[in-house]
Parts: sequence; structure tokens; C-alpha cells
Amino acid sequence: MELTHIEHIGIAVKNLDEAIKYYENVLGLKCYAIEEVADQKVKTAFFKVGQTKIELLESTSEDGPIGKFIEKKGEGIHHLAFHVKDLPNALKEADEKGVRLIDSQPRKGAEGLNIAFLHPKSTYGVLTEFCEE
Amino acid sequence: MELTHIEHIGIAVKNLDEAIKYYENVLGLKCYAIEEVADQKVKTAFFKVGQTKIELLESTSEDGPIGKFIEKKGEGIHHLAFHVKDLPNALKEADEKGVRLIDSQPRKGAEGLNIAFLHPKSTYGVLTEFCEE
Repeated sequence: MELTHIEHIGIAVKNLDEAIKYYENVLGLKCYAIEEVADQKVKTAFFKVGQTKIELLESTSEDGPIGKFIEKKGEGIHHLAFHVKDLPNALKEADEKGVRLIDSQPRKGAEGLNIAFLHPKSTYGVLTEFCEE
Repeated sequence: MELTHIEHIGIAVKNLDEAIKYYENVLGLKCYAIEEVADQKVKTAFFKVGQTKIELLESTSEDGPIGKFIEKKGEGIHHLAFHVKDLPNALKEADEKGVRLIDSQPRKGAEGLNIAFLHPKSTYGVLTEFCEE
């Protein structure tokens, strides 16, 4: 497979508005989009730094994946997303090499990207996402 | 301050050799350097993907920061490092804006970079590093 760059880093936060203020006023980044992804029960805010986006994630429900993550581990980095060339083939290759897939087929994620997740049990603890336009 | 890109992502792993195999054989990245940073009690392996490095970190001691992190949270993403222009000024600005600094002055990190850490209590749970050549 071919990973070209880090597409985004997903960061779980309790309060999106407060965290946006920190990323804008302290780090000097600019929030260019806010989007709700209903099926993931999250509201997201996007920033760009070089090739990579920072995706802040606030849970819209305690029983959503981000709500559960924060309850267990606290706020912090939630997942790492690589841009890949040929996502279906990258998933096939990972599967053949014994990686446990959360998504065996690409699905639609935020910003209209095709995405799929690998299970952290197979990736040394890093919840890993592959993305492609 | 001006953040130009994500310089690296630090990932805590239990066994560096095993994790290197995954990053090389599954993700198709190439480990280009292995370095021991004695004062941080870590052995590190570096990969490049786009503008950003992946820095795998294995503790050389149970009482080192990475050993403690893994004991508490398990393997996974440990810190996020931004490349900044004018590191001393970026630290001064963060300090003035109320951010708790782990390093009030730049110090030498892996690969000879000047680095400084911000405390995750001030950064919404993300152990944040600034780097400059």
C-alpha cells in the first residue's frame, strides 16, 4: 500500500467551543469548518496545519464512541488518519497480512472522504484510519 | 506564533522491533533511523510519511515517561509535535496566554532538534511539543 501523508489527527475533547478557542487563540490555527456526523454521534471542528488537518471531536451523546473514549481515557488524541492511494486495495492488503479491520469496506466519513478504520488491537494501540477522496 | 506543519507524532510501544515490522511490512513505511535518547529513557525509531515523522518510542526503563504512560494508558499515541517558527517566542507567547509549560526554555531532543513541551492540562489532553531546527 502507499501512504502519502497524514490526512488528519482526531482529538477527543469535552467542549468543542473551548478547545477551538485554544487552537485559534494560542496555537494560531484557523477553524475552517464545523460539521456534525450524526451516525458517529460527534460534532467536529477542522483546522489545517501543513498537509494535515486537526479534527476536534466532541461527543453529542454519552454512549457515542467519543463519549466512551473520554470516559475511559480522558481527553486527548483519539485516532490517526493516513491518506492512502487505492483504499479498497489497502484494506485488502491489510486484511491479508492479518490486521483486524473495523471496516472491511470503505464508507463515507466527514468532509465526504472515503474512510475505513483498522482495529487498535492490530496496530499497536493506535486507532488507525485510511482516507481517500 | 506560527505552526508550519506537524513535525512528528510520538507513539508509545512495548516492543520496538515488533512495531517496526508492522509499520514496514503492513503500512509500507521505511524505518530510516533508530536512536536512543538516554535522558528520556527511550529508544526511538523514525519513519517519514509526507511532511511528518512517525516516532515510535520504547521505554528503556519502567520508571521512564514512556514506561509510565504504557502502564497507565496502554500502547498508543503519546504526543503531537508541531514545527514552529521561532521556538523561544512561541513559548513566551504560550506562557503569556496562560498555558502551563513543561519546558520554559528550549532543550535538545531527538535528531538534534530544539524542542519544548506544553503540559496536557493546558492543551485539552494532548501532550504537545514544539520543535525547531
